[in-house]
Amino acid sequence: MLTMQDALRRLSDYWTSKGCLTWQPFNTEVGAGTMNPATVLRVLGPEPWDVAYVEPSVRPDDSRYGENPNRLQTHTQFQVILKPEPGDPQELYLGSLEALGIDLSKHDVRFVEDNWQQPAIGAWGLGWEVWLDGMEITQFTYFQQVGGQNLDPIPVELTYGVERILMAQQGVTHFKDIVYATAADGRPVTYGEAFGQQEYEMSRYYLDDADVEANRALYETYVGEATRMVEARLPVPAHSYILKSSHAFNVLDARGAISTTERAKAFATMRRLMRDTAALWIERREELGFPLTREQSSTGPVAPEQTDPASLGTAPQTFALEIGVEELPPHVVPQTIEAVREALTSKLAATRLEHGTITVDGTPRRIVAIVEGLAAAEPDAEQLRKGPKWSAAFDAAGNPTKPLEGFMRGQGVTADQVVKAEIGGNEHAAVKVSVEGRGVLDVMSEIVADVVSGLRAEKNMRWSDPKLSFSRAIRWLVALWGGAVVPAVISDLSAGRTTVLERPVAGDIDGRRSDGARVGTVEIASADDLLPTITEGRIILASDARRASVGEQATALAATVGGTVDLEGESALVDEITNLVEEPHGVLGHFDERYLDLPERILTTVMRKHQRYLPVYRDGKLAPHFVTMANGLCDDDTVRAGNESVIRARYEDALFFWNADLAAENVDGFVPGLDALTFEDRLGSVGLRARRIADVAGRLAARVKLEGSERETLTRAGQLAKFDLATQMVVEMSSLAGFIAREYAVRKGETAEVAEALYEMEQPHTSADPVPASTPGALLALADRFDLLAAMFALGAKPTGSSDPFGLRRAALGVVRILRESAGTPLEKLTIRAGLEDAVARLAEQGVEVAPDAVDAALEFTIGRFAQLLRDEGTSADLVNAILPAANAPGRASRLLRELSELEDERLDDLVEALVRISRILPGKVKPTYDRSKLTEPAELALADAIEKMPADTASRSMADVVELTDPPVAAAEEFFEEILVNAEDPAVRAARQGLLASLLAAAPAGIDWKALDTALS
Amino acid sequence: MLTMQDALRRLSDYWTSKGCLTWQPFNTEVGAGTMNPATVLRVLGPEPWDVAYVEPSVRPDDSRYGENPNRLQTHTQFQVILKPEPGDPQELYLGSLEALGIDLSKHDVRFVEDNWQQPAIGAWGLGWEVWLDGMEITQFTYFQQVGGQNLDPIPVELTYGVERILMAQQGVTHFKDIVYATAADGRPVTYGEAFGQQEYEMSRYYLDDADVEANRALYETYVGEATRMVEARLPVPAHSYILKSSHAFNVLDARGAISTTERAKAFATMRRLMRDTAALWIERREELGFPLTREQSSTGPVAPEQTDPASLGTAPQTFALEIGVEELPPHVVPQTIEAVREALTSKLAATRLEHGTITVDGTPRRIVAIVEGLAAAEPDAEQLRKGPKWSAAFDAAGNPTKPLEGFMRGQGVTADQVVKAEIGGNEHAAVKVSVEGRGVLDVMSEIVADVVSGLRAEKNMRWSDPKLSFSRAIRWLVALWGGAVVPAVISDLSAGRTTVLERPVAGDIDGRRSDGARVGTVEIASADDLLPTITEGRIILASDARRASVGEQATALAATVGGTVDLEGESALVDEITNLVEEPHGVLGHFDERYLDLPERILTTVMRKHQRYLPVYRDGKLAPHFVTMANGLCDDDTVRAGNESVIRARYEDALFFWNADLAAENVDGFVPGLDALTFEDRLGSVGLRARRIADVAGRLAARVKLEGSERETLTRAGQLAKFDLATQMVVEMSSLAGFIAREYAVRKGETAEVAEALYEMEQPHTSADPVPASTPGALLALADRFDLLAAMFALGAKPTGSSDPFGLRRAALGVVRILRESAGTPLEKLTIRAGLEDAVARLAEQGVEVAPDAVDAALEFTIGRFAQLLRDEGTSADLVNAILPAANAPGRASRLLRELSELEDERLDDLVEALVRISRILPGKVKPTYDRSKLTEPAELALADAIEKMPADTASRSMADVVELTDPPVAAAEEFFEEILVNAEDPAVRAARQGLLASLLAAAPAGIDWKALDTALS
Repeated sequence: MLTMQDALRRLSDYWTSKGCLTWQPFNTEVGAGTMNPATVLRVLGPEPWDVAYVEPSVRPDDSRYGENPNRLQTHTQFQVILKPEPGDPQELYLGSLEALGIDLSKHDVRFVEDNWQQPAIGAWGLGWEVWLDGMEITQFTYFQQVGGQNLDPIPVELTYGVERILMAQQGVTHFKDIVYATAADGRPVTYGEAFGQQEYEMSRYYLDDADVEANRALYETYVGEATRMVEARLPVPAHSYILKSSHAFNVLDARGAISTTERAKAFATMRRLMRDTAALWIERREELGFPLTREQSSTGPVAPEQTDPASLGTAPQTFALEIGVEELPPHVVPQTIEAVREALTSKLAATRLEHGTITVDGTPRRIVAIVEGLAAAEPDAEQLRKGPKWSAAFDAAGNPTKPLEGFMRGQGVTADQVVKAEIGGNEHAAVKVSVEGRGVLDVMSEIVADVVSGLRAEKNMRWSDPKLSFSRAIRWLVALWGGAVVPAVISDLSAGRTTVLERPVAGDIDGRRSDGARVGTVEIASADDLLPTITEGRIILASDARRASVGEQATALAATVGGTVDLEGESALVDEITNLVEEPHGVLGHFDERYLDLPERILTTVMRKHQRYLPVYRDGKLAPHFVTMANGLCDDDTVRAGNESVIRARYEDALFFWNADLAAENVDGFVPGLDALTFEDRLGSVGLRARRIADVAGRLAARVKLEGSERETLTRAGQLAKFDLATQMVVEMSSLAGFIAREYAVRKGETAEVAEALYEMEQPHTSADPVPASTPGALLALADRFDLLAAMFALGAKPTGSSDPFGLRRAALGVVRILRESAGTPLEKLTIRAGLEDAVARLAEQGVEVAPDAVDAALEFTIGRFAQLLRDEGTSADLVNAILPAANAPGRASRLLRELSELEDERLDDLVEALVRISRILPGKVKPTYDRSKLTEPAELALADAIEKMPADTASRSMADVVELTDPPVAAAEEFFEEILVNAEDPAVRAARQGLLASLLAAAPAGIDWKALDTALS
Repeated sequence: MLTMQDALRRLSDYWTSKGCLTWQPFNTEVGAGTMNPATVLRVLGPEPWDVAYVEPSVRPDDSRYGENPNRLQTHTQFQVILKPEPGDPQELYLGSLEALGIDLSKHDVRFVEDNWQQPAIGAWGLGWEVWLDGMEITQFTYFQQVGGQNLDPIPVELTYGVERILMAQQGVTHFKDIVYATAADGRPVTYGEAFGQQEYEMSRYYLDDADVEANRALYETYVGEATRMVEARLPVPAHSYILKSSHAFNVLDARGAISTTERAKAFATMRRLMRDTAALWIERREELGFPLTREQSSTGPVAPEQTDPASLGTAPQTFALEIGVEELPPHVVPQTIEAVREALTSKLAATRLEHGTITVDGTPRRIVAIVEGLAAAEPDAEQLRKGPKWSAAFDAAGNPTKPLEGFMRGQGVTADQVVKAEIGGNEHAAVKVSVEGRGVLDVMSEIVADVVSGLRAEKNMRWSDPKLSFSRAIRWLVALWGGAVVPAVISDLSAGRTTVLERPVAGDIDGRRSDGARVGTVEIASADDLLPTITEGRIILASDARRASVGEQATALAATVGGTVDLEGESALVDEITNLVEEPHGVLGHFDERYLDLPERILTTVMRKHQRYLPVYRDGKLAPHFVTMANGLCDDDTVRAGNESVIRARYEDALFFWNADLAAENVDGFVPGLDALTFEDRLGSVGLRARRIADVAGRLAARVKLEGSERETLTRAGQLAKFDLATQMVVEMSSLAGFIAREYAVRKGETAEVAEALYEMEQPHTSADPVPASTPGALLALADRFDLLAAMFALGAKPTGSSDPFGLRRAALGVVRILRESAGTPLEKLTIRAGLEDAVARLAEQGVEVAPDAVDAALEFTIGRFAQLLRDEGTSADLVNAILPAANAPGRASRLLRELSELEDERLDDLVEALVRISRILPGKVKPTYDRSKLTEPAELALADAIEKMPADTASRSMADVVELTDPPVAAAEEFFEEILVNAEDPAVRAARQGLLASLLAAAPAGIDWKALDTALS
C-alpha cells in the first residue's frame, strides 16, 4: 500500500527529476502553499523558477476537532510551480499521477474549469480543478497576476490535496484512517495516530479558546511590522508579516469575531501590503540583476512544412483546420465554435477564393472547421486605381495636368492607358491594373492566423506564448488544404499536420487503447483524413451528437435501476456536461438511501453544483443514484467507486450538520446564537440586525394595513428572522440560507406560512430568482434590504467602484424587483423612500448615528440600480429617463413603462408633444384651476370645454385610456397654441390661460418626464 | 555531485527505510529541530516514536547579512528521533553518512563528548558532537530530561548540520556556493541563488529593522496565550505559543534589547511554561491511552554461554574482562580505568580466589582488565560462627546456659563442638563450620556484575537498558576465564566472548581494513586472546602507549615543517587527545599565514578549545601548522583538507571581526556603543555601568591615595572601561573580553599601562586565573565587582539556590581574591565594606533606589564566599571561623591565617587559652587601661609588669612576634588566674583588674575569634 509519506516522497522525486528545486514548508502558518514565498514572491518578475514542496496548510475555519471525515484545520498540500509554464504542464502533471501509482487507464481524470482568484493578495489565474473519479485532487492554475502585478513569464501552479488523494487511493472514508507511514516494526501508523491530537487541540484553539483581544493585538502588530518593512524596502520580512497578519485574521474569523467592515478593511490592508511587497520584490530582484535569469535559447515558432506551389494542382480541395486547446470551460466551447465559424466565413468572403460548405464544431479540447471544395487559387482580376478628378486631369488643351502626370508616373503608365471611371460618386482619372489571384496557401495562412489570433473569451489568459491570449492555452494547430500544410504561423504557434487525440497513458500499445481507439499524436495525410482520425480516437466532435450521447447514456443507465433522468429540466447541466468531455462515458453511481432523508434540494445542489452528476428520479422522487459522465474509456467500477466515495463524503457532511441542527428542541433555540455573530462594528450583531428587520417589517405592514393571520405570520417569522444563520448547515453552505430556515421551521412545529415567509425573506437571491410570493415574506425581504441600505448609507459607506462588500447593489435590486412585481397587491403602494425612512428611524432608535443625507443617498442609489436594471432589460435609456420620476414606487413606474411600451396609438405622440409644449410654457408649478370668466377667445373656450369633459380620474387610468380621453383636449390645445398668446398682458387672463394648460397637464399621469418621453418616442 | 537537496532526500530515504516517520518543518520559527513538537513533545511519555525531518532553524543572533561564509540566520537541520534508542544508534548513524556517499574508510569520524542542555526548556542529555575531519556535522544526544520530565524510554536525537556537511562534501568555502539543486536545464542552482536574498533581508530585520516595542508586545501576547492554553489543558497550542514567544525573545536579543534581568525572567517563564506543557502532554496522552504504544516483545538479556563446571579443570587461568562502551568523554577514561581496577582488586580480595597480577587499562571505547593466574575455585575453608560470650555460655555448674543452648540449636551442633574463640576482642563460644570454595565462574560472575553495575561518572545517563546508568552506554561485555565465558548478567547485558574492534565500513573485506587491521566483531577463544585481538585491530589499549604515540607522531609531523609541539605545555590537551582516540593517527595541517596576524591567543584558543589541535611552533613563535589526531586509518589528504577547511572557516570568522574592529580610528569610538547594550532594566545600559565602574575606581584610588602616572592610567582606562564589549570580536567570542581590549588598545595608541589595566580589570576570570598585577587594573577590577554586587543587592536581587544569573558568586570571589593577594600593596588596607559603600553611593547618585540593608547584605554575602573559598582550599572550618572577624579586609585576614597556620610554637596554645579565658571573664568591651594604684596583689602586679614590658605595637606584629612578646604576660596571667578574683567587691579594684586583662587582650591582633581559634587548635 502507498502510504502518505511514500506519496509525498514520490511526488517530490518525480518533480525533482523534472528539474524542480525542493523547498521547505514555510515557518509561519500559511493558508495554502501559494502563500509560501517560493510561490507568491518567486512567480513575480522575469526569473525562471521551478520548485516543488510540501505545505501543511492551516485554515482555522476548517477546524472540526478531527471529527469531520474530510475536513482538517491543517491539511497537506503538495505544491509545484513551473515558471515559465513549460508548454506541456498537463502531460507532466498526469505523469506525476502515474508516479503515484495511479493507473490512468482505469480512472476518469478531468480538467474542470476553475478560475482562481484571491483578491486579498491581488492575484488571479485561470485553470482547472483536476478531478479523479469526481474528486477534486489538484488545483491547476496559470497564474496571471499576483500582488496586482501582471506576470511575465506565466507560471503554472499545481496544488495537490494530498489527504484526498490518499483517502481515494487507500479506500478509507475518514482522514484519520489514512495509513501515513510504516513503522520500524512494520505496523502501520495512521494519520489519526500521527496528527489526531493536534487536529483536536488546534481546533479547540481556533474555535473556542483563542483569545480574541490577544489575536487582535497580534494582527495589528503584524500589520505594523509589515508596513514598516515595506517602507524599509525589505520584501521578505514584509511578506512574512503579511502571512502572520493573515493567520491572526483567520483565527479571529474562526472565532466569529470579524465583522463585515473589519473584513473589508483587513482585505484592503492585505491587498495594499501585498501589492507594495510584490512591487518591491521585483525592484529588489532587478537591483540584484535578476540573478536567476539565464540566457534563454528562445525557440520561437517551428518553421511550418512548406509545399511547392507548383505541385499543388488546380483542383479544389477540402480545407481542414483544427485548433487544439487545453480544456476550455464548457460555456466557452459553443462560443468559440461560433466565433470560428463567423470569422472563417467572413474572412473567406473577403477573398476571391471559391469554396463549398463551411462546417465548424468542437469539443473542450479542439475546434475543427472544414471547408469543402476550396479553390486552389483566387482567379486573376482587374482593379481600378484612382487618379485625380477627371475635371482636374486635363488642361484646357486636353493635356495631362501636373496631378495626372504625377499619377501616371507613379503607376508607370502612359496617357493612353488612363480611363475615366466613377469612383465614390465622382469621375476620376484611373488606370486598370490586372491583379493576379493569390494561391490558397497564402490566403489561408493569413486567414488561419487571423482566426486563431482573434480568438477571445470573456476571461482570457496568457501562457508561454509571447503574444497569444485566450480562454485557455492553444497548443496545436492542424491546417491542411488537401495534402498540403497551410503554413500559418501565429506568434510561437505553427500550423502542421499533427493532431492530438486522447492523452496516452501507461498501458496503451502502439498508440492505441485497449479498446483499439487511437490515442496521442497522429499525423494527418490530408484534410479529408482529419475527421475520420478524430473518430478513430472515439472523440465525438459534433456537439449535438455528444449531447445526444450524454442523454442516451444517462437515460439508459437510469433505466437499469428503474429510474429516469430529467433531461429537459437539467438542460443547462447537460449542456455543461457535453462540453466537459470529448468522449462521454456514462457511469451509474449509487449512494446510501439514508441520505434521502435530507431534502432533495440539498442533495441535488451537491450533485449539480459540485459534481455535475445527473440526479436519477423514480416515481417522481429522487432515487439513490446518479449518473456521472466520464471522459473516455475507464474501468467503470473504479470510477463508480471513486465517485460514490466523493458523494458519500459530501452527503455525510450535510447529514452531520442536518442531524446536529435538528437535535435542537425548536428553532427559537438558534436565535440567541445570532447575537454571537458580528455583523458590523457600529451596527452590532446579526441578532440585532434580525430584530431591526422584524421591526421594520412591522412598520411596513402598518403602512399597508396588513392584518389577521398574515400579520401573525409576519410577527412570528420576524421573531425567527435569519435564525438559520446560526445553524451548522448554513454556516457550512451559506447558499442554503432561507431554504434551511424553511426546512427546519416546518420540522420544528412552525406553521407552513411562517416557514415560507422565512424562506421568502431571502428572495430573490439572484436576478433569475423569483421574488417572495407571500406578503409576509415580501415585507421581511424588503425590511431586510431596507435595513441593509439604510444602515450602510447611515454610516456613509456606499459602494465605490467594484467594491461592494455588503452587496448593496444586490439589496437595492431586490427592493426594486419585489416592489415592481407587487402590482395588484397591497405592497404596490409602498415607496422606496418610505421603507428607507422606516429603516433609518429604527436604526436611530438603536442609537446609530445617521448621516443626514442617508435616506436621499440610499434612494438615489436604489433608483439608479432600478434604471440600470431597466436598461439591461432592453428599455431605451430615454424611456427609462421618462419614468424615473415615478421610480420611487417601482410598481407604478413599471406599470407606466409597460403601458407606454405596449401602447400603439399615434395619438400618444400628440399628447406628449402637447404636454412638452405646455411644460415649456408654464412658469414652474401652476395649479390646474382657472377662472372660466376670464376666458373669451374661441380657441381657449374650446379647450376649456374639452378639458371639462374628461373624467376627473383620467390621470390615474391606464395610458391607453389617458390617450383616448385626452385626445379632444389635445386637439383643442393645438388650435389654442395657434391662436392664443398665453402670456397675456392682463395678469388675470394670463392666470386663467396658464391654469387651463395646467389642467390638461394634470390629466396626464404624474411621474413621467414628458420631455424624455418625447425624445424616446422620436 | 551530491546537491543539497539530494542530500536531504537521501537522509530522508535512509531514515524512512529504518522505519522513521517523515515529518514536516514546523509552521512557526524554531531555533532548532528539537523544538518541533515531533521532538520536544513526542519524546515525552512511554510511546515509541521514530521520526526524521528537515528543519530550517532560525537564529536571529546568527544573522550576518549572508556575508559570513559559515553563519546563517536560517540554517538547515536534519533531525532524527529514535525512541527508544535502538541499541545501535551510532552504527545506524554511520550508515546514514555512507548513504550520503561519504566514504568512511577515508574520513576521520569521531564522537566528541558533548553534554547538551537547554535550561530554558528544562532539558538535558549526554552524547557527542560528531566530527567529520574535525568539523562538527551532527549533534548526537541521548535525551535524559525534557520539560523537566525524566524520559523513559530514552530517545536518541541526531541533528545534522546540513550546510556544513555539504560545504565539506562539495569543497566550497562559502555557504552561498553550495550547489543546492540542479535546474531543469541542467545548470546548478546555488544556495546563494536560492536563499541569499532571504539571508540578507531577514538579517536586516533581525539586526537592524525589527521594531523593539512591537516585538516586546508580541512576546507578551505569546506568553499570555501559552499560559492560557496550559490552563485550558491544550499542550499543542501552548507549545506553539512557547515557540513564538521564544522567537520574539530571540529577535529582541538580536536587536540588543534584552537586559540580563529580562533574560533571566524570560528563561524562567519559558522553563515554567515548558514544564507545565510537558506534564500536560503526558497527562493528555495518558487520557488518550497512549495510543502509539505497542506490545513490546521485551527481549531482556541474552542467556550467556554456560560451561559445564566439570570441564573447567583445576588449573589457574587468565581472566579477561572487556567493558565495551560508546565513546566515553576523555576525562572519564582514566577515572573508569581506576574505578575498575579498585573494584576488581577489592572484590577479588574479598573472595578466597587466588590470583596473580591485575592490570587494567582502556580507551574511550573499552576498559579491559586482565587477571593472571586466577584459580579455578576458592579453596574450601573453615569458618567460626560466633555464639554468646564465653562468660555467659556456661553456668556455675559448667552446663550450657540458655543463650548457648539456643545458639547450639540454631547451628545444629552439640556442646562438644563448641569452642572458645576470641572474636572482636572478646571471648565467645563459637563453632567451626567448614565452607566449600565456590567455583571461579560463580565468583567472577558476581564480581563482573558488581563491577559493571557499579560504574559511575560525574555525569551519568540512561539508555535503553532498563537499569544501568553510566557516563555513556555500555554495549558489550567480554568476560572469559581461560576459554570459558564468565556468565555474568547485568540487567539486559550479558557477558560473552565477542569483542568489537573498529566499526566496519564499506570497503572492508572479510572483516579487515585495507591495511589488514581487523575490524568489527570478533569471537575470542580464550582470555589470553583478548589483548592480541585488540592489537590485531591496531587499537592501542594502553593509555601510556597511546599517549606516547600521540606525542611521537605530533613531534615527528611538526618536525617535517621544522617545527615543534609543546608537549609539556599542552599536557592537558595531550591527555584529552589520548582519550579521544583508540588508534591515534596524526595528520599535519596547514593554515594560511595571513591568519598569523591575529594574536596567538585567538589562534591557539580556537585550536585547543574548539578543535583539539596541537599548535606547532617554530623559533618560539606559532607556525601556520597544526597536528590533529585522527582515529585510525584514513586518507591523510582527505582528513587534512577537511580539517584545514574547518580551521580556515574559524580563522576567517575571527579575522573578519578583527579587521572590521580595527578599521576604527581609535578605541574611544567603541565607547558610545556600550550605551546601546542593555545591562539591566533599572540599572540602565552597559555604558552607564562602565562609567559607574570608572567613578568607583576613582573613589577607591582616593582611599589608597593613588597618584601620579598610575592615577593617570586609571583615569584613561576608566574612560575606556569595557569598550571591547562593543567590538564584533567580543560580541562573537565573549571569553576574549579584556584580552581584546588590551590588544585593540595597544594597536590604537593607548599606553601599555592603560592597555594592561583594561586587560586586568576582567581578571580573575576563573579561580585558576591570576588577579590583576597593576594597581590601576586591580582598582578597576574591584570597582567592576563592587558595582555589580552593590547594584544587585541594592535591587534586592541576591542569588538564590543554583540561580545566579549575574554571576555574583564569581564577583564576590574576585573581590576577595584581589584583596587578599594585595598584601604589601597600598590596596591591602581596602575593606570590602568601603568598596561596597563607594559603589552604593555612586548608584544612589545615578538615581537608583537602594535597599537599606544593601551594603550589609552584600558584605555578608561576600564574606560568606571568602569563608567558603578558604574551606575549599583546605583550611579547617574552625580556623576559618577564627579569622572571620578580620575578613572585611581579606588581605589582613589572609596574612593572619597564614601566620597562624605556619606558626609552630606551643606557646600559641597558652596565649589562646589565656585570651579565651579573659574574653570569658570580661563583661563585654573593656578599655585596655587600668589604675595601677589599685593593684596590690603580687600576681596582679607581676602581670602588670609583664604587660608593661611589651612594645606598644605588639598587636600589629606578626603572630610569631605576638606569641614571643606575649609569652611573659601569658605566663603571668596563669598565676594571676590562680590567685586573683577579678570581680572584686571594690568596684575600683575590679575595674583595674579588668583593665589589666583587657590590656593583654589588646596586645593580641584584632579580628581573631579566639574561642574559634582555641577549638581549631585543640
